[in-house]
Amino acid sequence: MNVMDRIEAALETALARGESPSGPPLLMQAMRHAVFPGGQRIRPRLCLSVAMACGDDMPQAADSAAAAIELLHCASLVHDDLPTFDNADTRRGKPTIHKAFNEPLAVLSGDALIVMAFQALAKGVTGAPDRLGRLVEIYSEAVGSPNGICAGQAWESESTIDLVEYQRAKTGALFAAATEAGAAAAGYDNAQWRVLGEALGEGYQIADDLRDIAADPEKLGKPVGQDAANGRPNAVAELGVDGAVDRLKRLITAAVDSVPECPGREPLRAAILEETGKFLPKNLARQAA
Amino acid sequence: MNVMDRIEAALETALARGESPSGPPLLMQAMRHAVFPGGQRIRPRLCLSVAMACGDDMPQAADSAAAAIELLHCASLVHDDLPTFDNADTRRGKPTIHKAFNEPLAVLSGDALIVMAFQALAKGVTGAPDRLGRLVEIYSEAVGSPNGICAGQAWESESTIDLVEYQRAKTGALFAAATEAGAAAAGYDNAQWRVLGEALGEGYQIADDLRDIAADPEKLGKPVGQDAANGRPNAVAELGVDGAVDRLKRLITAAVDSVPECPGREPLRAAILEETGKFLPKNLARQAA
Repeated sequence: MNVMDRIEAALETALARGESPSGPPLLMQAMRHAVFPGGQRIRPRLCLSVAMACGDDMPQAADSAAAAIELLHCASLVHDDLPTFDNADTRRGKPTIHKAFNEPLAVLSGDALIVMAFQALAKGVTGAPDRLGRLVEIYSEAVGSPNGICAGQAWESESTIDLVEYQRAKTGALFAAATEAGAAAAGYDNAQWRVLGEALGEGYQIADDLRDIAADPEKLGKPVGQDAANGRPNAVAELGVDGAVDRLKRLITAAVDSVPECPGREPLRAAILEETGKFLPKNLARQAA
Repeated sequence: MNVMDRIEAALETALARGESPSGPPLLMQAMRHAVFPGGQRIRPRLCLSVAMACGDDMPQAADSAAAAIELLHCASLVHDDLPTFDNADTRRGKPTIHKAFNEPLAVLSGDALIVMAFQALAKGVTGAPDRLGRLVEIYSEAVGSPNGICAGQAWESESTIDLVEYQRAKTGALFAAATEAGAAAAGYDNAQWRVLGEALGEGYQIADDLRDIAADPEKLGKPVGQDAANGRPNAVAELGVDGAVDRLKRLITAAVDSVPECPGREPLRAAILEETGKFLPKNLARQAA
């Protein structure tokens, strides 16, 4: 099975656990709406790519780790889209949960998706209990306080924003967790893999900021200029377009250089280069060439 | 250390993990506001009481399980109080999170408290990996879809409410998890302990419904008549006051009878009788005597 099929199958397994004739139908529909069809699945692909580079000796553990990080990401999107945050009408080209269902179900489906991520780990990482503990720790740190994605979003409620902590928590935390979890799921020391995830996370955030001002709204699936409209910090505002493109390129080099020793090091480095080549919106890639 | 001191210490340990000079101050304050000072801590007390009846051979595991269930409960209160649900101004005699801070921080602190619960398990249940897996499973089922507390709350978005599933999920799920987790943390088969938690949970819900129409608003710390105002199903509306009191008494007997064989069976049965004696508001206890 290829990487994308493994991810979709693992997500389907996780979602199916949350469904039963005895459950409230709209909540179950809302959770499915939030997860399928997906976007690029970039975090679980990164997680699985690292697990495969590390030998992938327990594919079910790696698949569960990949599903869990995507569930956490989807949960964060559902809550970020709420009226009290972005008040977004569309996401991935579809109505957001609070628009397609209602606001209570948006809060609840986000909550239930967070919980489902940890359930996926407990159900899928069996026979390797030390790995389960590490994975729960990695993901709880990546999502919660003081440095996870919730903390990242919470910086927007502060009168003074620590821009470095904000970006690192808001996007970097989940990317760092993706690489660490891929390694942990395959029985490798996760700490060594953090630099790779952090570099890719910062690169992705910069690319997102560039897309936010430059991309085609149809392709991105959400309204452009949202950061500017919400007065949020943004790498392009800080560094200018050329400065941001330059920083992105240096981060990609740092990411490729950081890959630790492992059986599949060279294919992984090649894959990172290919993947990150797609980060830049086409019009900016031409401009930067 | 007595039960209440153990719970407060375990919660303090968990909260401290979420705090750092590099984190967003208001989120960290909001999380503390949601957890301290507590209410009756009834779920973690139940969890620890069961662990102690089962021999409490790994106190740190039991303490972590107790802290985790209270964190999950506090998270649910923060989200239930949101404008899109109860729109409550006060909780435990203090302003709710969205009133004391703001609505984004209420969403985020609830999310971060959910995650903190699983982190507490991963950090505290060490050296007994099978217990960690069981505890993560128990809590994820108790909170998520299709039958956890999120599902319970989500029934309120359905045009037709399954009243049995609604009550079981909304309150029973977390009580059942409390007894199951206490047993699992002490290395006992958790499934046997579910009936006790379910009976206590249904009893507590009925007592809550009775308090909702009968209690002193100052003592309860939240406005009375909230269920009626929100048009929610309620045992008193369904059975009448006398019928509800009668059902509560039968549930308490069932709970006491259900306690499985364990070293501390008799003291636990006595404690259940004493605790549940406090369920009824005083004016109704007199009326029912």
